[in-house]
Amino acid sequence: MKHILIIGIGTGNPEHLTIQAINAMNAADAIFLPVKGAGKEELAEIRRDICERYITRPGVSISEFKVPQRQTTERTYAQSVDAWHGEIARIYEALISGLPDESRGAFLVWGDPSLYDSTIRIIERVRQAAGLDFDYSVIPGITSIQALAASHKIPVNLVGKPIEITTGRRLAQDGLQAATTVVMLDGEQAFAKIDDPDAEIFWGAYLGTEDEIVRSGRLGDIAADIVTLRAEARRRHGWIMDIYLLRKGRDFEE
Amino acid sequence: MKHILIIGIGTGNPEHLTIQAINAMNAADAIFLPVKGAGKEELAEIRRDICERYITRPGVSISEFKVPQRQTTERTYAQSVDAWHGEIARIYEALISGLPDESRGAFLVWGDPSLYDSTIRIIERVRQAAGLDFDYSVIPGITSIQALAASHKIPVNLVGKPIEITTGRRLAQDGLQAATTVVMLDGEQAFAKIDDPDAEIFWGAYLGTEDEIVRSGRLGDIAADIVTLRAEARRRHGWIMDIYLLRKGRDFEE
Ligand SMILES: C[S@@+](CC[C@H](N)C(=O)[O-])C[C@H]1O[C@@H](n2cnc3c(N)ncnc32)[C@H](O)[C@@H]1O
Ligand SMILES: C[S@@+](CC[C@H](N)C(=O)[O-])C[C@H]1O[C@@H](n2cnc3c(N)ncnc32)[C@H](O)[C@@H]1O
Repeated sequence: MKHILIIGIGTGNPEHLTIQAINAMNAADAIFLPVKGAGKEELAEIRRDICERYITRPGVSISEFKVPQRQTTERTYAQSVDAWHGEIARIYEALISGLPDESRGAFLVWGDPSLYDSTIRIIERVRQAAGLDFDYSVIPGITSIQALAASHKIPVNLVGKPIEITTGRRLAQDGLQAATTVVMLDGEQAFAKIDDPDAEIFWGAYLGTEDEIVRSGRLGDIAADIVTLRAEARRRHGWIMDIYLLRKGRDFEE
Repeated sequence: MKHILIIGIGTGNPEHLTIQAINAMNAADAIFLPVKGAGKEELAEIRRDICERYITRPGVSISEFKVPQRQTTERTYAQSVDAWHGEIARIYEALISGLPDESRGAFLVWGDPSLYDSTIRIIERVRQAAGLDFDYSVIPGITSIQALAASHKIPVNLVGKPIEITTGRRLAQDGLQAATTVVMLDGEQAFAKIDDPDAEIFWGAYLGTEDEIVRSGRLGDIAADIVTLRAEARRRHGWIMDIYLLRKGRDFEE
């Protein structure tokens, strides 16, 4: 049977790679590299750099494939995600069909495959839908949450307290709930609209890369600065990936 | 100045080590290995194995230190944690004082140092309290959450939905809140007391080690089996570390 490896590669620092991930890359016959185009060339470069550094076994082929853009016009969020996953599934299906029998293909996934990433879901969809016979395994990677906490040298949770991980869209909708909230996928700078000036924010962009920027402080004092800094960085790079952790400022019951 | 490295080592599989962690271990002059005693000898063995595998630079010294037990009699949870951190802080202080000037010491931390671990907090306490002059950095590691998700080959979050990470104590107190809840540090099998038989559970113990056990299914069908399995495994090993992910069974609003 064919085997697919879904390999977490960390979030920008090639040294985030685990020994398990490096071994899995070298055990693959073909590595599939997603290219997102449109200003995200730097991300493709990081993936290529990782392959160059760590693949030592001759005979591992590397092929790039274009990731389609998600279409958002005239659809709900759920519809647009579903249609997009369908498109990607067709690409995966073609890649996997092209693999020789009994061989191994690998997808390199940013961060960890289990955190706000669709590769596992789409591979499962391909396996269930098509007459394709393959199995797969998942290799964990360092997430952007861990990269953020490490750069700020902070624990994510308060002692014995829960953590919420959510998206910018959700934070804007629901406000700050937990003592500690980690926010990812925030295109709308939802932190700047939170009504809790005494909250603390730990923010980071391009974590793990040479362009890493981090800021922390009282939300009321630095939210506007981060908005400006983020807009500038985004203009300079053509893209941005940022994440932040919020600690509620108001007293909350034990 | 002295420098302390707080290094995440993953959760049992020596191949969880990142290149960054391996480089940091080799950059250290002294590595401090916690030994928890009382049945946890296997965990100390994993740490020793990691040192043996990956330390290639001659001149890295390795010393073990005993971690005191947390005293719980006649104290609140917060008091007992605080007193315990105080005791550990005195041990860290002695270890760091013993380092030659300008040298580097390293603490190896299970999983990631930012997730339900006190090393960062205690090092910060030592730095602020004592007249000790040192700085420190944090190196991320694979967490037990990622090991759990990888073994079950599942995404942690549902598309665009939040994640809650909490403790057994909290789950027992608050019940199931989020669509996806990850529960750690559960000594009371709180999952078995949740009133949601249609919830799905993804459970794992000794993840990453040779003794890894995983189970998944409808909570109403398998909660009792997991309780039995867990008790048996715990008896056999003398200790257990387990973690699980719950997906709410009842419909919850988008
Ligand atoms: C589609 S999710 C993928 C997350 C990834 N699987 C992980 O484990 O971190 C993309 C989001 O992750 C966060 N992110 C990923 N890499 C990052 C980085 N290097 N710096 C800052 N944020 C990052 C951002 O919040 C971004 O919007
Ligand atoms: C004190 S916390 C430390 C967590 C660690 N820093 C991490 O990143 O996973 C200990 C808890 O982590 C979980 N855990 C750690 N290692 C585990 C393993 N190998 N298998 C299952 N659960 C584990 C269990 O829930 C355990 O009660």
